Amino acid sequence: MITNDFYSQENVGPYEIYNLGDFKLEDGGIIPNLKLAYTTHGELNAAKNNVIVIPTWFSGTSKDYESYIGIDRALNPSEYFIIVINQIGNGVSSSPHNSPDPISMANFPNVRIGDDVRAQHKLITEKYGIEEIALVVGASMGAQQTYEWAVRYPDMVKRAAPIAGTAKNTVHDFLFTKTLNDAITSDPGWKDGNYSSHLEVSDGLKRHADIWAVLGLSTEFYKQEKWTLFDMNSVEEFIEEFLHPLYESLDPNSLLTMGWKWQRGDVSRNTGDSLEEALGRIKAKVFVMPISDDMFFTVRDCEAEQKMIPNSELKIVNSVCGHFGLSGVDGADYHRQIDNYLNELLSINVVEPV
Amino acid sequence: MITNDFYSQENVGPYEIYNLGDFKLEDGGIIPNLKLAYTTHGELNAAKNNVIVIPTWFSGTSKDYESYIGIDRALNPSEYFIIVINQIGNGVSSSPHNSPDPISMANFPNVRIGDDVRAQHKLITEKYGIEEIALVVGASMGAQQTYEWAVRYPDMVKRAAPIAGTAKNTVHDFLFTKTLNDAITSDPGWKDGNYSSHLEVSDGLKRHADIWAVLGLSTEFYKQEKWTLFDMNSVEEFIEEFLHPLYESLDPNSLLTMGWKWQRGDVSRNTGDSLEEALGRIKAKVFVMPISDDMFFTVRDCEAEQKMIPNSELKIVNSVCGHFGLSGVDGADYHRQIDNYLNELLSINVVEPV
Repeated sequence: MITNDFYSQENVGPYEIYNLGDFKLEDGGIIPNLKLAYTTHGELNAAKNNVIVIPTWFSGTSKDYESYIGIDRALNPSEYFIIVINQIGNGVSSSPHNSPDPISMANFPNVRIGDDVRAQHKLITEKYGIEEIALVVGASMGAQQTYEWAVRYPDMVKRAAPIAGTAKNTVHDFLFTKTLNDAITSDPGWKDGNYSSHLEVSDGLKRHADIWAVLGLSTEFYKQEKWTLFDMNSVEEFIEEFLHPLYESLDPNSLLTMGWKWQRGDVSRNTGDSLEEALGRIKAKVFVMPISDDMFFTVRDCEAEQKMIPNSELKIVNSVCGHFGLSGVDGADYHRQIDNYLNELLSINVVEPV
Repeated sequence: MITNDFYSQENVGPYEIYNLGDFKLEDGGIIPNLKLAYTTHGELNAAKNNVIVIPTWFSGTSKDYESYIGIDRALNPSEYFIIVINQIGNGVSSSPHNSPDPISMANFPNVRIGDDVRAQHKLITEKYGIEEIALVVGASMGAQQTYEWAVRYPDMVKRAAPIAGTAKNTVHDFLFTKTLNDAITSDPGWKDGNYSSHLEVSDGLKRHADIWAVLGLSTEFYKQEKWTLFDMNSVEEFIEEFLHPLYESLDPNSLLTMGWKWQRGDVSRNTGDSLEEALGRIKAKVFVMPISDDMFFTVRDCEAEQKMIPNSELKIVNSVCGHFGLSGVDGADYHRQIDNYLNELLSINVVEPV
């Protein structure tokens, strides 16, 4: 275990912790005393049917969804009980750097999207007795978990809104994530996962950030000099004063745990590798919400999946920020689109097919 | 100087060498006895007005254009005198690994697109007495050189066909190329450019190849499992048996020299940073030919430049292979498109504006 203040209550909290006990993983092994960090907004109603579940994205924490939630938003805590759950390995929930032996650091086991969703299910059923979810919504790896929720618990999930993510990770995305991972593991300071401080892996984390710079935004983002959205005055500033510090502050093993998981996100693991069967099983009303300029979770790839989901619609979110648009950095224009789509989705009365 | 058989006459020849003597560079310094390697197809006619010039792309050699040239092609050696010229630093023309001291290896100077085009101009005027070029055509960095030709020598170049490349490199492209370069320079085996064999930089070259795998093809290439076009049976084979060996065989310093040059390709250096003025200066009839699925020399970016060129048309080449489509790996379908466009372009009678 090592300390990394990035993941502290002061920085990404407030969050609560739920201890799930020993948790068996799909790929073998267990996480002893698996801890899920989560945050809630609003109150669970008596019928327990006003629940919204939001899983986190790669490198993100529950803090990152704060701009999505508010009394003037679709994700309205005065109407809904909103639970934002940090994915396993994200540095806040049980992760390589904050876990004791025998799963500390390089010994942290491989975790899959299915593990996250089973753990989240355990949290909300055990702790809150919830049996119905009005909406699961999440972006990027949060979308992977959203799809997994809808496929794995079709009777429980009434609506789902995967933003900027896929149900089955593409081959292209697997290769992209490999370059992100290799940027870290090729740094001699990584020491096969047993560094004594994440600062020893700064070079690798900077190269990791540089690859995000290429795929995470869009060609149009740079052409339109949209780094001003991040309060940066030049592309150099955007790279060196925003992206580098952002990734340098994170835990390298945490990024690798999430990277491994992201590469293998695939709901068809539930149905003997048939994606059509997996998506066909979904009973929720689904809005598939890719971002227009996303370079790796492309509209084309998301649309192909949407067509396999019985009760679904394609709702494209426009942003020249590409994948990073999900951070809400576009401000009002982005959130207006998200709110409009989610308000529409939440207003749909989902009736069970006869 | 070190030996690398990849660049031998046996492998990428036959090519001839022209020695330009001491060549002054835009960024300062000289290349003593600059050698341009080039290959010719067909015969120069008496009027010396049947000339086609083709500059090479990143990591490519004159050999790579062979599939573009033939008596059944637009680039027809029975009609035209076709000169394919290896760019400086490509491993065949003067380059870090084949140059003697004082510019060997890490001491090789920075070279710009403008240097290449001035050197190529010297070659064709001095050696052949050519004063008019029917067509300059090239892909990727070959397109950068094509634009530079048309801007720098507007009276000489009658037609130009930049394929999958831009006149002014984009910020996004600069960042992409940085990740390609960093994959090499972060390898301890690179030794600041003074390795004793390119084999010592294999790890870096493999990571370089892995980044090409993400940006060089397209999301659709992988979705449609188009690695079969490369005679590969799986994506793993495509990466490990095609892309890795391809880049591992190349000279790391050569890739870095070209990478640095690519990053800074910009015809507006001729006109005090005004791209509009530079492109407005072009007298050639220009077909701007981006590839539909190119992830970094995007259709959108190429079209924006095309609109600034007086006598030009946008001609999109369809290929799910993205940027790598330029290798002609699609086969007949790709070459049919290229030939149709180039035949049309060559058939246009270019009259000087009054």
